[in-house]
Amino acid sequence: MANTVTVPSPETLKSLESLKMESEVDDDVVDPWNVVSKSETGVDYDKLIKKFGSSKVDTELLQRIEKITGKSPHHLLRRGMFMSHRDMHTILNEVEKGKPFYLYTGRGPSSDAMHMGHLIPFFFTKWLQDVFDVPLVIQLTDDEKFLWKDLDMEKAKKLAFENAKDIIACGFDIEKTFIFSDLNFIGQCPEFYQNMVRIQKCVTYNQVKGIFGFGDSDCIGKISFPAVQATPCLSSSFPFIFNKAKLPCLIPCAIDQDPYFRMTRDVAPRLGAHKPALIHSVFFPALQGAMTKMSASDNNSAIFLNDTPKQIKSKINKHAFSGGQATVEEHREKGGNCDVDIAYQYLTFFLEDDEKLEKIRKDYTSGALLTGELKKILIDTITPIVTQHQEQRKALTDDTVKEFMRPRKLKYSY
Amino acid sequence: MANTVTVPSPETLKSLESLKMESEVDDDVVDPWNVVSKSETGVDYDKLIKKFGSSKVDTELLQRIEKITGKSPHHLLRRGMFMSHRDMHTILNEVEKGKPFYLYTGRGPSSDAMHMGHLIPFFFTKWLQDVFDVPLVIQLTDDEKFLWKDLDMEKAKKLAFENAKDIIACGFDIEKTFIFSDLNFIGQCPEFYQNMVRIQKCVTYNQVKGIFGFGDSDCIGKISFPAVQATPCLSSSFPFIFNKAKLPCLIPCAIDQDPYFRMTRDVAPRLGAHKPALIHSVFFPALQGAMTKMSASDNNSAIFLNDTPKQIKSKINKHAFSGGQATVEEHREKGGNCDVDIAYQYLTFFLEDDEKLEKIRKDYTSGALLTGELKKILIDTITPIVTQHQEQRKALTDDTVKEFMRPRKLKYSY
Repeated sequence: MANTVTVPSPETLKSLESLKMESEVDDDVVDPWNVVSKSETGVDYDKLIKKFGSSKVDTELLQRIEKITGKSPHHLLRRGMFMSHRDMHTILNEVEKGKPFYLYTGRGPSSDAMHMGHLIPFFFTKWLQDVFDVPLVIQLTDDEKFLWKDLDMEKAKKLAFENAKDIIACGFDIEKTFIFSDLNFIGQCPEFYQNMVRIQKCVTYNQVKGIFGFGDSDCIGKISFPAVQATPCLSSSFPFIFNKAKLPCLIPCAIDQDPYFRMTRDVAPRLGAHKPALIHSVFFPALQGAMTKMSASDNNSAIFLNDTPKQIKSKINKHAFSGGQATVEEHREKGGNCDVDIAYQYLTFFLEDDEKLEKIRKDYTSGALLTGELKKILIDTITPIVTQHQEQRKALTDDTVKEFMRPRKLKYSY
Repeated sequence: MANTVTVPSPETLKSLESLKMESEVDDDVVDPWNVVSKSETGVDYDKLIKKFGSSKVDTELLQRIEKITGKSPHHLLRRGMFMSHRDMHTILNEVEKGKPFYLYTGRGPSSDAMHMGHLIPFFFTKWLQDVFDVPLVIQLTDDEKFLWKDLDMEKAKKLAFENAKDIIACGFDIEKTFIFSDLNFIGQCPEFYQNMVRIQKCVTYNQVKGIFGFGDSDCIGKISFPAVQATPCLSSSFPFIFNKAKLPCLIPCAIDQDPYFRMTRDVAPRLGAHKPALIHSVFFPALQGAMTKMSASDNNSAIFLNDTPKQIKSKINKHAFSGGQATVEEHREKGGNCDVDIAYQYLTFFLEDDEKLEKIRKDYTSGALLTGELKKILIDTITPIVTQHQEQRKALTDDTVKEFMRPRKLKYSY
């Protein structure tokens, strides 16, 4: 196994860090329902890590992952898009001892069409599944969306099914992946429901009020919902997969979901279960800039997975916030600012080739590369990703989706 | 069909009323977890009916029930033990139109041994099932007991199973009765779970705080529990019984459970369902007197269903609060007080023969019947009931219990 880690150049790293960590603004709001930053470079993740009490993903961790898996860390990991974690070393200790773990991630299905930002955790989760060869459970919180939105239940369940297709199209292994809708699955698994009630016994209203900001006029469904998202952290919630084995789980997710799992990490040991480990991603910026999370309800804020190549081209050219100068002449002279340029930022998520990315960064910063040219590179990079995703989604039959969502044994050796 | 109602004599009724309704004390506390009365004659039910906004069971209702069923009302009904109701006339209207309804009752399984007071709603429910020929669902809220008590989950489930035996031994028709434990059943029925979530969306923390007195340090399991007890009021929660038919339900229960169903009656129409109808019973008094509800945890406060004839005899002779005088001479002279005498009160629950009961009342009041003699009548009345119950319980196999608890079609025509 290789003992060195492929990392981007210090300059690339710096530009990424500046995107994520140099903001000194104290007004960032990050919880599962709000992500608001007052800074053009987005949320201050260093501060957030401190506030949440998680750990930074550092070179030592990257090296250890590379050593154990024999694979170069995923570009989202080596470029710091997954920048924070809890107990990753505990998971790696288990792997070194030859013991299994499982992956758990999820999605709140709020619209028919997911956008490219939604793919980030799933792309990364798929990589984790591949390099660690572990089972994966994916929770679709259609109950959450039903409770929070003005949405009827049938619509919420339908959205979960449609979102499952987009997730499956990321290439998950059907033999190792169980996808479930809360509304359909919880009433099919007594062990899951019983663990929910066990967790509900361990958490007070005061606690969820403190963690999630719930108020007295919130419905009791919202107030007890955190237990629903916590339950998949216990392997005993899925007896058809794990029998009676107690496995730790690793949760790749955007950092706004951390409050649920801070709560779970408090509860799990009292139920004789492992604390869930986490690896947190930054937020994928909106086309208009890093000051907000993208919104599935604003069609121009994001590239959607059902956009046509023409729409992608037009959205990027029209709406992607530019770090370039006002005129070509000025740009050639002063160069562009990668720290705020959305086309460049998107490339850091989707262009795997570190050398190409580094060259783009240098050229744009120097002014050799113009904004239009940079946008064209982005269009050429993500159009095939979206097109391929659409083809894979289209090729899916409802039966395949149902099979992913059927409680069943997964391939996992223990 | 007969058009007259068999009722106890005005004097018997008066003595019963005095037991239940003459207290002027304003300190009665009645909610699902507390029943405390400062009066020797127990809770003031007239006040409670006013406070809860329910209706009194009156002669008109009794006559209508007799007319529609062709049967004399159960002695618990004609003697006013089921003294309050909501929408009984609506249920009878449906029956007159040839439309079906179903019965729903339940129990929180808090101890291995149920006491005789626990049988009252089930005896009455069985009578309702027999005379109306309707399906019945019985909820065992083992989740509630797990959440409220220092009880592990396996023990809670075990208690539910043991309590199911005591309930079945009351003689319910297996073809018309579904008994379920929340912890086992909810995870087997997506429609039930989905209705729970629907109800949870309609009820705020403020509301359950107001109705049930929950506080901020209560666990989120308690806070969302009222939705669990509300869900069986919707026939769509049991698709294996009712398919897609919308049936109204009638709930026979002790009046302390009313808050759950007041809440449900508010929510049900918003979910396109019928408001549940209710018929409320008084509380069965403790051996020591009517000032408190019996406690399954105080062995001497009640006759338990697993007591031996010797224990029954000893408990009644030693602990049953007497309305008699200090000496035989004084008793012969002044007579006893049926309004507070527990042996007499128990007979009103278990001695079906109105004439015999009336003679006992007269003789005890006049002093012709001594306390020891009255207690002997009670012992001779309830010992065979307990013994028969024990035999019926013993004859039950685990397989029969499991069959009662298996989600399945019930015999019901529509």
